[in-house]
Amino acid sequence: MSERDALLLNYLMDDEEELNSDLTVDSQSVTYNTTISGDPLQAPSSRSVSLRLSDREHAVHEGSSSRASTDDDMVDPSTTGYATDQDESLDEGANHYSDFHTIDWLKDIAKDRLRHRSIIKKRKGTIPNKLSSACDAASGWLIVFLIAVSVGGVAGVIDIAAPWFSDLKLGICKDSFWLNREQCCWDNENNTRFDDSESCSQWATWPILFGIGSVNGAGIYLLEYVMYCTIGVLFALSAAVAVKIFAPYACGSGIPEIKTILSGFVIHGYLGKWTLLIKSTGLMLAVASGLSLGKEGPLVHVACCLGNILSYFFPKYRNNEAKKREVLSASAAAGVSVAFGAPVGGVLFSLEEASYYFPMKTLWRSFFSALVAAFVLRSINPFGNKHLVMFNINYYQRPWYFIELVPFMGLGALGGLFGALFIKCNILWCKLRKTSRLGNYPIAEVLVIALLTGLLAYPNPYTRKSASELIRELIAACSHESSEGICDYVNRTAETAHRGLSSSAIGPGIQTALWQLSLALVFKVIITIFTFGIKVPAGLFIPSLCIGAITGRMVGIGIEQLALANQNLLIFENLCRSDQSCVEPGLYAMIGAAAALGGVTKMTVSLVVIMFELTGGLQYIVPLMAAIMTSKWVADSIVSEGIYDAHITLNNYPFLDNKEEFTHTSIAADCMVPQHHDPPLAVLTQNSMTVASIEKFLKVTKVKGFPVVISKESQHLVGYVERRDLRVALDNARKRCTVMPESRVYFTPQYPADMHTSDQPSPLRLRKIVDLAPITITDQTPMETVYEMFRKLGLRYTLVTHNGRLLGIITKKDILRHVASLENG
Amino acid sequence: MSERDALLLNYLMDDEEELNSDLTVDSQSVTYNTTISGDPLQAPSSRSVSLRLSDREHAVHEGSSSRASTDDDMVDPSTTGYATDQDESLDEGANHYSDFHTIDWLKDIAKDRLRHRSIIKKRKGTIPNKLSSACDAASGWLIVFLIAVSVGGVAGVIDIAAPWFSDLKLGICKDSFWLNREQCCWDNENNTRFDDSESCSQWATWPILFGIGSVNGAGIYLLEYVMYCTIGVLFALSAAVAVKIFAPYACGSGIPEIKTILSGFVIHGYLGKWTLLIKSTGLMLAVASGLSLGKEGPLVHVACCLGNILSYFFPKYRNNEAKKREVLSASAAAGVSVAFGAPVGGVLFSLEEASYYFPMKTLWRSFFSALVAAFVLRSINPFGNKHLVMFNINYYQRPWYFIELVPFMGLGALGGLFGALFIKCNILWCKLRKTSRLGNYPIAEVLVIALLTGLLAYPNPYTRKSASELIRELIAACSHESSEGICDYVNRTAETAHRGLSSSAIGPGIQTALWQLSLALVFKVIITIFTFGIKVPAGLFIPSLCIGAITGRMVGIGIEQLALANQNLLIFENLCRSDQSCVEPGLYAMIGAAAALGGVTKMTVSLVVIMFELTGGLQYIVPLMAAIMTSKWVADSIVSEGIYDAHITLNNYPFLDNKEEFTHTSIAADCMVPQHHDPPLAVLTQNSMTVASIEKFLKVTKVKGFPVVISKESQHLVGYVERRDLRVALDNARKRCTVMPESRVYFTPQYPADMHTSDQPSPLRLRKIVDLAPITITDQTPMETVYEMFRKLGLRYTLVTHNGRLLGIITKKDILRHVASLENG
Repeated sequence: MSERDALLLNYLMDDEEELNSDLTVDSQSVTYNTTISGDPLQAPSSRSVSLRLSDREHAVHEGSSSRASTDDDMVDPSTTGYATDQDESLDEGANHYSDFHTIDWLKDIAKDRLRHRSIIKKRKGTIPNKLSSACDAASGWLIVFLIAVSVGGVAGVIDIAAPWFSDLKLGICKDSFWLNREQCCWDNENNTRFDDSESCSQWATWPILFGIGSVNGAGIYLLEYVMYCTIGVLFALSAAVAVKIFAPYACGSGIPEIKTILSGFVIHGYLGKWTLLIKSTGLMLAVASGLSLGKEGPLVHVACCLGNILSYFFPKYRNNEAKKREVLSASAAAGVSVAFGAPVGGVLFSLEEASYYFPMKTLWRSFFSALVAAFVLRSINPFGNKHLVMFNINYYQRPWYFIELVPFMGLGALGGLFGALFIKCNILWCKLRKTSRLGNYPIAEVLVIALLTGLLAYPNPYTRKSASELIRELIAACSHESSEGICDYVNRTAETAHRGLSSSAIGPGIQTALWQLSLALVFKVIITIFTFGIKVPAGLFIPSLCIGAITGRMVGIGIEQLALANQNLLIFENLCRSDQSCVEPGLYAMIGAAAALGGVTKMTVSLVVIMFELTGGLQYIVPLMAAIMTSKWVADSIVSEGIYDAHITLNNYPFLDNKEEFTHTSIAADCMVPQHHDPPLAVLTQNSMTVASIEKFLKVTKVKGFPVVISKESQHLVGYVERRDLRVALDNARKRCTVMPESRVYFTPQYPADMHTSDQPSPLRLRKIVDLAPITITDQTPMETVYEMFRKLGLRYTLVTHNGRLLGIITKKDILRHVASLENG
Repeated sequence: MSERDALLLNYLMDDEEELNSDLTVDSQSVTYNTTISGDPLQAPSSRSVSLRLSDREHAVHEGSSSRASTDDDMVDPSTTGYATDQDESLDEGANHYSDFHTIDWLKDIAKDRLRHRSIIKKRKGTIPNKLSSACDAASGWLIVFLIAVSVGGVAGVIDIAAPWFSDLKLGICKDSFWLNREQCCWDNENNTRFDDSESCSQWATWPILFGIGSVNGAGIYLLEYVMYCTIGVLFALSAAVAVKIFAPYACGSGIPEIKTILSGFVIHGYLGKWTLLIKSTGLMLAVASGLSLGKEGPLVHVACCLGNILSYFFPKYRNNEAKKREVLSASAAAGVSVAFGAPVGGVLFSLEEASYYFPMKTLWRSFFSALVAAFVLRSINPFGNKHLVMFNINYYQRPWYFIELVPFMGLGALGGLFGALFIKCNILWCKLRKTSRLGNYPIAEVLVIALLTGLLAYPNPYTRKSASELIRELIAACSHESSEGICDYVNRTAETAHRGLSSSAIGPGIQTALWQLSLALVFKVIITIFTFGIKVPAGLFIPSLCIGAITGRMVGIGIEQLALANQNLLIFENLCRSDQSCVEPGLYAMIGAAAALGGVTKMTVSLVVIMFELTGGLQYIVPLMAAIMTSKWVADSIVSEGIYDAHITLNNYPFLDNKEEFTHTSIAADCMVPQHHDPPLAVLTQNSMTVASIEKFLKVTKVKGFPVVISKESQHLVGYVERRDLRVALDNARKRCTVMPESRVYFTPQYPADMHTSDQPSPLRLRKIVDLAPITITDQTPMETVYEMFRKLGLRYTLVTHNGRLLGIITKKDILRHVASLENG
């Protein structure tokens, strides 16, 4: 049970009827968090946490155990639960939404157009006006440019620091400690080729540093082993502690939350500066610790943090949550772009996977952002090579044959199976963590996982090295020089290799390698299931790719040997040519990697594009596609959701999936609040209420807004008033001393003209705060239409009418609850 | 004035107030079409044309000159204009929409879900049911696969035939006439390298065929010249005649219409088999004629025709216009994919430029379709090389320098200027053609343009060859062997070239080439303005690319010489290295080509991706992006619309641009029908009308549907009834003889129980045909919200209410009219 879950309580608390099981969790989390809130939490982002928790405790003490939150839900006005809503309009300045709110896209976009129009009008004015108008027009491009540069910069720093930390587990560069192992050896030999097997005099391993480097034996191995595990555990622990103390949001991959935020939800602090700082540093440590995780997913979160922070400097984006999401979409694209060096793939990822509302203008800016970010990172050149691609494949010229689509699709099926298995197991484990006492010890969990990972990973050379190095090795073809491990073919000499005769029977090196790879595969699969979800920054791309690449390479070697042994068979005829290798196992590794990642994330087009940008293999796009498609089909037949969507469901985030279709036959009347057994909706009447009655009304209700009707009897809908606006209007009126408690309140444009002359107090006219254009539907509207409207228009709520009379209201949460009840019952 | 314009009359006729200028056009077109309808039109797709035209004439004779059409507009019931609406429900079977209708996305999607659910229910049934359910599930993939294969096949045929026809202008292959010039010479020399300058014994030019090949002189040149022009004009003429007689829709690029169709408009026959046939064959002839046009845009139209025709075999798509558009989106992607060999670019083009409603499922299928189509085309291998890319660039290893972004952006600005100029001039010319008598002679126009093109193109070697050959030559770097034309550098020998020293002072060949290229540029720019819009299949991609490539190559040579002359200057320091060429003019040509196309079409992301897939130059993505961005900015500052959108506006297609934002401050009340001066809306009351009164009502109105209200007095909205449904229900009731003219009609669920006992005739209950969930908005809703709702939900109409009372209706056309009136006044 994490702090994050507790924070979401406020949003989810009023689902008491449907989500009874969660209530148990909630009370647990409260206990857990109460102990935490006693800690000296000094980081700004945590302050809001403690604040909120104390609110929460207060609510618990007051006895209103399940109604501490006020959301845009309609709640029975007779409930006596008391909320701290009043001061909301005071402490919030420009930002219209508080935490855990659903934003109203239509309103926000309309607001921005209004702002835009006022600027256009000004343009004809003085020079400063013209200047500010020009600034405003340029700010959209400026902000994505700044985001791109900063994302590229941060990614560069992480890419430089993570290998250094990682190599610290093995030793240190003697004369210049700031260099990692690879750079340390470059320095020495004055060339940038670095062979793993070569020893390097500058590089001091721990035994050497401890002064026992000269002896050779079990002691040295043990010391290296211990140092590897100890330092790895230390890294993991420091990441976990930093996350726990300073930024509870910095754990995990962040992509499920980014998806939720982009769909129009506000989680204050999730994209703040402390999250950014802790996620970035924690990411380096977590990657360096040797845990089975990647930095690619979290980089998307880091990029979105940067986007959010930079948007504070632009009023256009700071004050408009809908516009801010355009910036965040571009940031997500930039994040994937730097993670893989794949700008086009980044944009497609943002479009396909992350984003919700994606106007064409955003597409172009996202592309710009992704490209500039990739360019900046390339200029920083953290890997020391000028390649734009991450895993360079060295078999450009090798064609693939139609018959090979069969094993490729087989790999796809394997990848899909793995993906489905992974999602099922990971979700089961995460549920267990949420519901059992295990969730109370996140640090201990990290410690155990890190220790286990270190202990099991070190003995196997393929798991000892970092996952991205392993992928690089598996995807590459055997070069002319290499003849060890997976390249140990019989009769392989420099001469035959040079002639391209890389394929022959496997030697003992490959046999050992196959065993080691099998063990590595099993280890990676199991440990990754337990790793994804622990409280350190952790991405899933690299582990999935790695698992797929191992499978692919093994299958590839198998097919190669099969083809070699049966060269006369018709189906293998084309595969083996005299002057070429039989099949390229590296290609199989690449396809397998893509298939595994596809199975886990259910990405499609963006994955194909990322893979081909990642490897530079334009000609392998058809095999990639075939494998990824098979993978998705297989995975879809077992679990319906990808890992990110599964985590969204697991955490009950208010997310309307824009890929899923609403498949039930209910109508709006089945979903709206109130249902038959509920008390009627809290409504205002347009001209029959007094200030005092509205004050009382505000006290006994805690919903975010009220429909206004002509009269209690007719219930014909006039408009909608936000609680906040009503509160502020009443307060202002009282400050001006123009109203008395018995003043009539008019939400109408007309009011009786003789009011002033009579002895009654002067009326309060509140026409201005009424939204006269709420989105309405009829009670007979099919829920699929309602679902489409919520998704496509980004609604917060819609009012339900019948023949013009108000019947109820539907919020996004009502829909989610409705869908959940339909699927469970 | 074309037939197409006349066909749209029906849709546009009732815009008499706002579009007075068009009325003149309309009457002209009627004259023109009346003469046509006397021709023996036998092609099925033309039959509907003549039918509709006679309707039109009928209407004109009846004297209701401007109200011949009935659309989903609300029209004053007191108007006595009489329409032939009644038989609509009879002659239309499965297809719910007639010609020139806006489709209702929400309803169609809901319909498909209903169908889907019934299939899911059936799945638990017998084996045939299971089988049909499986078929249905697979049909989505099957249809895109079939489309992909057929698109690839048709594109292959066109790619093979067009060069053959084109070479016919120069001569014929002696022994095997079915080979084009290039293949003819391969056959002879048994290699696939083909050098343009070499003569080839098998290839017989026209002078040789006429028996005067041995003499050399002005006569031969003249004969070749005459043959070139004559055959070109003949090709162009036959394309134009075929278009005119068999398929009037086959002219132009088709992309504006595809955009309109994909946005939810029905143009019957636009994607029919005759259009397909004539567009494909006409395309070969038009390309071969030497006119300044390309086959890429029309290939998208051809692909959509194939998609539409194939969808007839799948009931799921045949009967649902919204689902059909998913297939058409995928077809468009496949079309671009085969046109450029750019699958990813094709998908992005479909997403960015063509499509309107693009669910994620469609994205993945479109990608599949694009990829398979490209693969099929590659297997057909029409160009005789195994390259996936169309214009292979041969300078992969050449880096570009940051300073070069300045000339690249300069090229972008030039491209943007050209694009804006082109759009302005072309639209002006098309307007002139529409409004003057020029439009009456389309064949003559083609003749003149083709003759002019031939006469002016032949003398210049750069315009004589086909545009795509020219682009290939301009984009390529000077290879080691070539030393003529644009590669004629001083001191250029095989030896220096081999050492990579391609850059040196320009020789006389380049000087001549620069002159010829300048002339070619001016010629291409002017002739393309007049060519795009004539009545042959004509695309714009290749001419734009060609114009840009010429500019780019010339600028590139300029920069090269500048850098060469000033190697000591700081800014040129990096550009010239001793062992490398200075700058690569071919790269400049590529950037220039992209910039020009960007300026004309205003494409962004998809263009970058297409260009890099087209050329295979992954490392030039940043320069491409910089140039295309500059180009778009420059072009946007001069004209707001791309060429396709400009043609949509020109032709008054009902298209709500999904990239434009609604920037005005009006509200729904300003846009709805009726306005103050209009008569009230035609409404039905829920329980106070009789069969006779409804019959009368149907006679005096001609709108497509009626809102149902509680009573004339209260006007509280109950629902909406389609005219067609009402008509059918009344007819059925009369057939069953259950009703009398004085029978009461009830649209309510309850009706007085004592009805049967009284002496009144039995009532007619029509609750079932009432749509109880029409989309409604209030009169105060900002128009930008209404606009968003129409775009995102794909509405046909929305009802406007105030406090639950019906005030009016807004259709898509009302919005377009409203926007037009706001922008003009």
